[in-house]
Amino acid sequence: MQKIKARRLPGIFLLAAATVMLLAGPLAADEGMWTLDNPPLKQLKEKYGFEPSAAWLEHIRLSSVRVGDGGSGSFISPSGLVLTNHHVALGQLQKVSTPQKNYVADGFYAPSLADELPCPDLELNVLISMENVTAKVLAAVKKGMDPVKALAAKKAAIAEIERLSLKKTKLRSDVVSLYQGGEYWLYRYKKYTEVKLVFAPEQQAAFYGGDPDNFTYPRHDIDMAIFRAYENGKPAKVSHYLTWSANGAAENELVFVSGHPGSTNRLMTLAQLQFSRDYGYPLRLQSMKRMLGVARAYAAKGPEEARQAAGMIFGIENGIKVSSGEYDGLKAAGILEKKAAQEAEFRKLIAANPQWQAQYASAWDDIAQAIEKQKPRMKELSYRRVPGMRLGGIALQVVQLAAELQKPDGERLDGYHTAELESLRFRLFSPAPIYPGLEEAMAADSLKLMLEELGADDPYVKACLDGKTPEEAAKALVAGTQLADPALRRKLVDGGPAAVAQCRDPFIVLARKLDPMVREMRKWQEDEIESVTRPAGEKIGQARFAVYGKNAYPDATFTLRLSYGAVKGYPMNGTLAPYKTTFYGLYDRAASFDNKYPFHLPQRVADARDQLDLSTPLNFVCTGDIIGGNSGSPVINAAGEVVGLVFDGNVESFMGRFFYDDTANRTVSVCSQAMIEAMNKIYGAGNLVKEILGK
Amino acid sequence: MQKIKARRLPGIFLLAAATVMLLAGPLAADEGMWTLDNPPLKQLKEKYGFEPSAAWLEHIRLSSVRVGDGGSGSFISPSGLVLTNHHVALGQLQKVSTPQKNYVADGFYAPSLADELPCPDLELNVLISMENVTAKVLAAVKKGMDPVKALAAKKAAIAEIERLSLKKTKLRSDVVSLYQGGEYWLYRYKKYTEVKLVFAPEQQAAFYGGDPDNFTYPRHDIDMAIFRAYENGKPAKVSHYLTWSANGAAENELVFVSGHPGSTNRLMTLAQLQFSRDYGYPLRLQSMKRMLGVARAYAAKGPEEARQAAGMIFGIENGIKVSSGEYDGLKAAGILEKKAAQEAEFRKLIAANPQWQAQYASAWDDIAQAIEKQKPRMKELSYRRVPGMRLGGIALQVVQLAAELQKPDGERLDGYHTAELESLRFRLFSPAPIYPGLEEAMAADSLKLMLEELGADDPYVKACLDGKTPEEAAKALVAGTQLADPALRRKLVDGGPAAVAQCRDPFIVLARKLDPMVREMRKWQEDEIESVTRPAGEKIGQARFAVYGKNAYPDATFTLRLSYGAVKGYPMNGTLAPYKTTFYGLYDRAASFDNKYPFHLPQRVADARDQLDLSTPLNFVCTGDIIGGNSGSPVINAAGEVVGLVFDGNVESFMGRFFYDDTANRTVSVCSQAMIEAMNKIYGAGNLVKEILGK
Repeated sequence: MQKIKARRLPGIFLLAAATVMLLAGPLAADEGMWTLDNPPLKQLKEKYGFEPSAAWLEHIRLSSVRVGDGGSGSFISPSGLVLTNHHVALGQLQKVSTPQKNYVADGFYAPSLADELPCPDLELNVLISMENVTAKVLAAVKKGMDPVKALAAKKAAIAEIERLSLKKTKLRSDVVSLYQGGEYWLYRYKKYTEVKLVFAPEQQAAFYGGDPDNFTYPRHDIDMAIFRAYENGKPAKVSHYLTWSANGAAENELVFVSGHPGSTNRLMTLAQLQFSRDYGYPLRLQSMKRMLGVARAYAAKGPEEARQAAGMIFGIENGIKVSSGEYDGLKAAGILEKKAAQEAEFRKLIAANPQWQAQYASAWDDIAQAIEKQKPRMKELSYRRVPGMRLGGIALQVVQLAAELQKPDGERLDGYHTAELESLRFRLFSPAPIYPGLEEAMAADSLKLMLEELGADDPYVKACLDGKTPEEAAKALVAGTQLADPALRRKLVDGGPAAVAQCRDPFIVLARKLDPMVREMRKWQEDEIESVTRPAGEKIGQARFAVYGKNAYPDATFTLRLSYGAVKGYPMNGTLAPYKTTFYGLYDRAASFDNKYPFHLPQRVADARDQLDLSTPLNFVCTGDIIGGNSGSPVINAAGEVVGLVFDGNVESFMGRFFYDDTANRTVSVCSQAMIEAMNKIYGAGNLVKEILGK
Repeated sequence: MQKIKARRLPGIFLLAAATVMLLAGPLAADEGMWTLDNPPLKQLKEKYGFEPSAAWLEHIRLSSVRVGDGGSGSFISPSGLVLTNHHVALGQLQKVSTPQKNYVADGFYAPSLADELPCPDLELNVLISMENVTAKVLAAVKKGMDPVKALAAKKAAIAEIERLSLKKTKLRSDVVSLYQGGEYWLYRYKKYTEVKLVFAPEQQAAFYGGDPDNFTYPRHDIDMAIFRAYENGKPAKVSHYLTWSANGAAENELVFVSGHPGSTNRLMTLAQLQFSRDYGYPLRLQSMKRMLGVARAYAAKGPEEARQAAGMIFGIENGIKVSSGEYDGLKAAGILEKKAAQEAEFRKLIAANPQWQAQYASAWDDIAQAIEKQKPRMKELSYRRVPGMRLGGIALQVVQLAAELQKPDGERLDGYHTAELESLRFRLFSPAPIYPGLEEAMAADSLKLMLEELGADDPYVKACLDGKTPEEAAKALVAGTQLADPALRRKLVDGGPAAVAQCRDPFIVLARKLDPMVREMRKWQEDEIESVTRPAGEKIGQARFAVYGKNAYPDATFTLRLSYGAVKGYPMNGTLAPYKTTFYGLYDRAASFDNKYPFHLPQRVADARDQLDLSTPLNFVCTGDIIGGNSGSPVINAAGEVVGLVFDGNVESFMGRFFYDDTANRTVSVCSQAMIEAMNKIYGAGNLVKEILGK
């Protein structure tokens, strides 16, 4: 089960994100998350005898959809139907649910357009064009500029490119840094913010087997949801969408995954991996386990509390499982030793060439030094957070947005540039419900953690607690705030710095006090860390090109990528995992656990048993190279048809963050046949099936 | 999938067998293979609140059956029905099959007594009594005897005890060495050699999933077979037999396994473990892999050849899987380090007590020195084998038996004592078919291996080849021999040394030449190795009692043991393995692999789908402590009823040879309900079900 955890990472993990790198050494079979400007044509031809045309690639690209801030999807009808995962749709399902209608637990189906349910804050993106703007970005850096100025100049140039593109095309315009800054590309997206929910099964069918089965295989999940994109109040007419395969995927068949992998760290230096192992993961896991405890205790209070916390609990459990897997992998015997040997070999080759030595050799030590510099501030960077589940973040964003809008675009904090504002406002002003009880519980615990770790004398802690206990402070904040009302947020932003300065809402008051400290940490990270690690990363990227050549793909950046591979099982636990599972397996697993949580069958699934063809393929695996963010990606055959829906990687794929090994690393998907069988026979969604099949 | 590999071990592995040892340190939950004179009453009462009565224990003992030379079973009807595994019955199924009737592939069912099929050479044993004869055995060793004489004296005493017991009781009488010679017990068995086959499914249903699924779980095997014991031409009337549970085993239920674990090595010294890792396992695996290649090549020649080699291929694949698992475990990080720390702690405690130091401390070094002494002769001990699959062994046994019968009982080679003769003759004169083609192929390859490893100048190799190539020698041996006829073997043995000396059968001629060299190696191992390692093992056993107390069970010795534990799943591959599987899972696995080998459904199983209740429990796991030899053991509930049939351990149990860890070590069994459902609805064996259920 994969979902990108972007925007949840505390500051300490920025180092990793800021230094995504290229691959070292030769590629493994079926390795790679390829950009659409540089698809793996050679590999496809040599290994699979397949040569995709430019039109084929364009069709796949324009049928692919980025869903929200962490998922993928695809158009599957000319009238804007978008297929993605239930767990990608979970946030919206949570937000449209009420104490009376729990769509997470019960599922949803709109038999007609009139029944479709508007989503409060879901943005879909379709990649319309890609333009290499490397020269323009690099031109901003003048000879002799110091690293801090050089970084600022590049950022300003990027903001200007984005602003001009937006103005000219009205399309969402993002400059993306690939190959650690080796290339910069302007990606333009068509944006849909008018989105409705069409179909979702019960979470228990989508996430069958719960946390234990999450990230494992064999699997039995109907992890699907269907939205519809609208434009001007009508279903969007899309000219590129994927048709449905009649037979699904066969064993050993070549398939493609088109989606948005969030981040990989395949060329982290040894120092960075050690830092992740010794600091990053333990801190992250400590924090997540604590949050999970709070969320579970809240959910235990009653059914309505359980409903409110459901989406969050899923997210945290998911995060803990993947982070534990990655952490265990880094600690496993031989992994870092392998990395050390690889790095030593790379550096030896560089040292053997005087020109390379002069240009690149310093990069590793630069990064190691930056890490050492960061260590003394680790606790601050990790634990100084805005309290609450959503309210604290909203308050800080309101305060910062009002201030940043006063500045020229190029001087603003990242996240507040002109080209980013529309999406930012869309999220910030979302009418999605906020649960005060949950906010208070989360705020109290994060304040407690902060107090324990940083002490009562830390100025940030002082500002947060204001002389109260964590519980009192959380209670006062949540009881006194009106920020759950999006109208207030809008009023404050529209009123500008003056309105913000006068506001007496306790969360805004707190955010005003925290803002200077947050800005100081951010600036310190940029000036002291990022200004060093970014150019060092660039050097390593260039060295990679110089030493090993340029047949490569960049680390994942939550932008569109094409992966490819074969549908096939793998050696597992002493035997073989099959390439697919069937509905038989679902009923087996339920019966094997005496229908106990989390292996119980939803009532509708139990009732449908005799209607189903139990031999229908349910889930399958392929070797395609993915990571969190790919959830919801279509799996496509050579004819461009949907044969499946990516929803997870297996446990053997955890180390895929650091390297790809096709022995057992597998992408787990829902079979196209299972989706049709379930919609028809379990959920009575025959009309929807007809639209998907074009009948 | 477990089957003891007794009698297949080449000489090199004797060291391990000769030094089976006690456990070190405190017991894990549910650990132990307990002798029936010392059942784990304390643990059962404390953990499960169960107090078995003496009558309960006696009933279980007298219902338990040792099957042949490597399996277990139980009486399940008053008319002598014996339940065991298909893979325990496989040898007999192979032997009763013909080119026209392949009972291995097709299964067998006798709807009436008249249809039951006589087995050529299956012996069943029921443990009638146990008597502690330690004092009698030890009395044979006089003060000041040198180790070689002491060993011989003990062996002579044992032979005499067995001989007298047999004479007096007519029961099979075996003296068993427990706790490395800390105790000697006289076990008396009622013996059945008139045994008929009643029921067996197709091998594909019994061994569903083949070699890949072997030793794994979740599992879907109907690994059962049913024999009937006869006496004087009539079904044996047995007063102790197990009744069938109506509902099978529930999750977390206390269950018992009563069977005959073959051997464990839980208190091998560090030196022995290292020796096993560095010499024992690599040599064994090399040899087995080679044999497998030969057997597969032979089977590929045609359907009749495939039929002949089927049982053998199963046995070798099984052996390779378990040995590879144990070998990988010994090589895994931390295992030997853990052992080293345990041993160092033990020796430290001994050293701290001057009396213990004087009595026991030398044992570890004695063993290490014996190992060093053995190393230079390793190649001879490993590769000097009698050629052929069965013919070479038969010839050597004929030659040795004729000679040994001339000596007083106490001076004979082990295996030829008076008390052992009846069982020996039963096997040696078996009319089971011998396949000349397979014999020749196996002989040629073992001669080739011998030549490669020992060289043409080795006198043993010279004797075997007699100037020919391995292929020529094998051809001449097999073409010229009449030993496939049991009448010739009997005639030779009855004719005594003179008949053997005059015989011109090429296998007998060869065995006469090899016999002195085999005897020399055997004597060398006794005098130089065993005479040292046995008393050293005894010392370690005594030290164990002195330091840690006597709440212990002895290492496994293919004698009756009682294990206990709970029915429960375990953490597996990132998720949970359920405590049971169902028939749904069988159909799922077949469909998941597109019904391809070895996951295809037998036609009868496929056809019965709609008749079966697919939610019927099929296989289940429990924590009971078992090892190869336990195959066919009944799983019994507290009421003494059959709830299952042990047929395997999971991959996590491989290290059970060396230590028990209840985290994931599990015994895998067929559910009682599955056997009834299958016999009734797949195999039309309703009459048999009625007899079992007592209806």
